[in-house]
Amino acid sequence: MPTFTPYPAPELQISEWLNTPSPIRLSDLRGKVVLIEAFQMLCPGCILHGMPLAAKLHALFRESGTVAVLGLHTVFEHHEAMRRASLEAFLHEFRYTFPIGIDAHRDGQTVPETMQAYKLRGTPSLVLIDKRGVVREILFGQVDELALGVAIGKMMAE
Amino acid sequence: MPTFTPYPAPELQISEWLNTPSPIRLSDLRGKVVLIEAFQMLCPGCILHGMPLAAKLHALFRESGTVAVLGLHTVFEHHEAMRRASLEAFLHEFRYTFPIGIDAHRDGQTVPETMQAYKLRGTPSLVLIDKRGVVREILFGQVDELALGVAIGKMMAE
Amino acid sequence: MPTFTPYPAPELQISEWLNTPSPIRLSDLRGKVVLIEAFQMLCPGCILHGMPLAAKLHALFRESGTVAVLGLHTVFEHHEAMRRASLEAFLHEFRYTFPIGIDAHRDGQTVPETMQAYKLRGTPSLVLIDKRGVVREILFGQVDELALGVAIGKMMAE
Amino acid sequence: MPTFTPYPAPELQISEWLNTPSPIRLSDLRGKVVLIEAFQMLCPGCILHGMPLAAKLHALFRESGTVAVLGLHTVFEHHEAMRRASLEAFLHEFRYTFPIGIDAHRDGQTVPETMQAYKLRGTPSLVLIDKRGVVREILFGQVDELALGVAIGKMMAE
Repeated sequence: MPTFTPYPAPELQISEWLNTPSPIRLSDLRGKVVLIEAFQMLCPGCILHGMPLAAKLHALFRESGTVAVLGLHTVFEHHEAMRRASLEAFLHEFRYTFPIGIDAHRDGQTVPETMQAYKLRGTPSLVLIDKRGVVREILFGQVDELALGVAIGKMMAE
Repeated sequence: MPTFTPYPAPELQISEWLNTPSPIRLSDLRGKVVLIEAFQMLCPGCILHGMPLAAKLHALFRESGTVAVLGLHTVFEHHEAMRRASLEAFLHEFRYTFPIGIDAHRDGQTVPETMQAYKLRGTPSLVLIDKRGVVREILFGQVDELALGVAIGKMMAE
Repeated sequence: MPTFTPYPAPELQISEWLNTPSPIRLSDLRGKVVLIEAFQMLCPGCILHGMPLAAKLHALFRESGTVAVLGLHTVFEHHEAMRRASLEAFLHEFRYTFPIGIDAHRDGQTVPETMQAYKLRGTPSLVLIDKRGVVREILFGQVDELALGVAIGKMMAE
Repeated sequence: MPTFTPYPAPELQISEWLNTPSPIRLSDLRGKVVLIEAFQMLCPGCILHGMPLAAKLHALFRESGTVAVLGLHTVFEHHEAMRRASLEAFLHEFRYTFPIGIDAHRDGQTVPETMQAYKLRGTPSLVLIDKRGVVREILFGQVDELALGVAIGKMMAE
């Protein structure tokens, strides 16, 4: 992983939450490692790699209490094709049960708010936030599980 | 592959075609082996196995002139989630360029017309039609490429 | 597959047979499609791709009576490392049960006899012989199962 | 990973070293996380999973200075088939360049010395030793890279 300059994680800007009884705020997750999978439901790399990895992370750490896994639906293309009804069918068909926030769109903007705030290059992007709420890495594209595990293990031990 | 009773292939009932300048009729394809990939764009088995296989078949036989590969979008669930705009974005994102017919829905029916006529069990289903227009096999779920190749090679040699 | 000029299959020159009660001669297999997997037990491509494919072919066609699958141990390097005791342990550990012939070495020759007669480029090589005993294809390296199946299906239909 | 009772790592008992200019002692590696891949060159799980993983670990941590990766050839079956000449050909063919120790055999014993001392269940086994020289985990069979990475990352942070 190349060098990355850490910075305080901007709060999520979410228009709607799925798979969670109440909205989630990063500020409520201090003390936990937070992993955010930014995805679009029709992006091939997200379907084939990003979302299965997020589901695996969620299953691995569900009982840990020290790592939280979130999905962030950052639609920046084909907006008409990826509305809430399609997203819900996608999550249902693939059995994705971890919390998913739909990134908020300001009127007339193509790129949604949270995606802009984090300056994501595209999807899938995996955002690693440490226990103090600092963005430590943003991994774009296919992620190596071994190297990812090492990075998470180190953050858990801090 | 279990024993299958061959029968004359019913004509396709298509409401709209994509990736083709003009509608395609099975009756115009006599003399060719025809492979029809019945899929739903949000069905995991279709995304992960069925459609990549169909694309591979299309690439392998594109120059042959003796094998035709078609997709059939047989939506029988989550209808709202898989409208034409979503399907077009899906095909664009995954770079699927072979002809796709949208299976026609009669008013008030959940299962579309062609899917009913072929009595498909679900998606993905790969329909193998021989040069005389007879359905020789319908393969449901993940398909073994080696066995499939043998079946196609035999039909090509008829 | 590139163009290949068919030629009559030279008879196998085998010093020892494993996994078969009696020696096998190509001339006794006329009327069957014959698939010969030429391998070395310590060649990575053979271990990872060639031999698993040969085993799969053997399982697929075991009951057919029309396709025979053979292994040919063509040692042309590291001779000391791949003697019969090592080969037997290899076959036992990987549960390979199809007939294996050890390609005969003439005194002082590095490349064994059958490998020379077929002018194999290296290992793994899959030799496709038709029902009349003619070599139709020699596939070097990793083989696509779909295309291979088509080639076999056509030969079966001849 | 199930609960494991940590214990001080017994010193390695090695008859010969490959891929290293001088013998390696665990006692010289205090302060580093040590990962030992116990394998047999003809064990399928070792060839397909264990050794590729060890090579990946070696490549990932080569520059780190804080993680050492070793191979341990623990032959407990087919002794005749896995002598040094065969092992050297295996390492050469698969391009394995990390240090490999051949586990020492006492006269008349089937199971080699280090394998006995660590009470390994079989091969492949991955032994995780922390910076203080304590065995923290022994992973038998195919290992999940994500979970392994987390375990290594935590040990690195200690």
